[in-house]
Amino acid sequence: MLKINDSYEHNFNFTQEQVNKFIEISGDDNPIHHDEAYAAQTVFKKPVIHGIFSASVFSKVLGTIFPGKGSIYMMQQVEFLRPMFCGEEYTAFFKVISLDEKRHTAEIETIIKNANTKKITVRGQAKVMNKEKI
Amino acid sequence: MLKINDSYEHNFNFTQEQVNKFIEISGDDNPIHHDEAYAAQTVFKKPVIHGIFSASVFSKVLGTIFPGKGSIYMMQQVEFLRPMFCGEEYTAFFKVISLDEKRHTAEIETIIKNANTKKITVRGQAKVMNKEKI
Repeated sequence: MLKINDSYEHNFNFTQEQVNKFIEISGDDNPIHHDEAYAAQTVFKKPVIHGIFSASVFSKVLGTIFPGKGSIYMMQQVEFLRPMFCGEEYTAFFKVISLDEKRHTAEIETIIKNANTKKITVRGQAKVMNKEKI
Repeated sequence: MLKINDSYEHNFNFTQEQVNKFIEISGDDNPIHHDEAYAAQTVFKKPVIHGIFSASVFSKVLGTIFPGKGSIYMMQQVEFLRPMFCGEEYTAFFKVISLDEKRHTAEIETIIKNANTKKITVRGQAKVMNKEKI
């Protein structure tokens, strides 16, 4: 059963091929995500991963590992603090900050840091329901 | 230039093929999203679209249409209120609720409704920066 302050870390990265497939299935073809010439003229200098795609790591971990199978995703808040780039290594951090055993729900802090610079790129909070684990 | 109460509507749907590709690129292979036999035993009765993938419609519209090119996605909060299913028609609604012209940022209400039942499936709020349009 999940307890307050339980935590989990997950290392990941994305390739431009994954980002291109996300563009295809989401229809989000903002050139900042794939056009090197366009991106070079922006503050980011090179194509950046879609913020909402980077946040899929939270859905993946909450739904498949921590707390895992049976989880129902109820809420996600995300602040996109710094750009994320293909090929860079990132770590997603999860920490249980509150539990409601009656409703089988937990609020979980969700953070992504660049694994090398340790700077936070995405900060937020999720709420999940899991009748077997909460 | 974006004004308070400016709004936009966008109709969309997702196919199981799109969901399967999202599973592939995100690694989020929770069986609730693709396994009909597993889903049949849950409260949802059939596979549901990933909440975070459904929220990609907000990223798509904010980054490519309203306010569009040049947008930098700063924040998204989403509550997943009802399940969303492949093949159903949905409408995403956007409404400007506050503006900060000095920082070129806007807070935008983001809602998804089932186009037939009119019930809200996702409710949330986004914050974007756009130096040309805010």
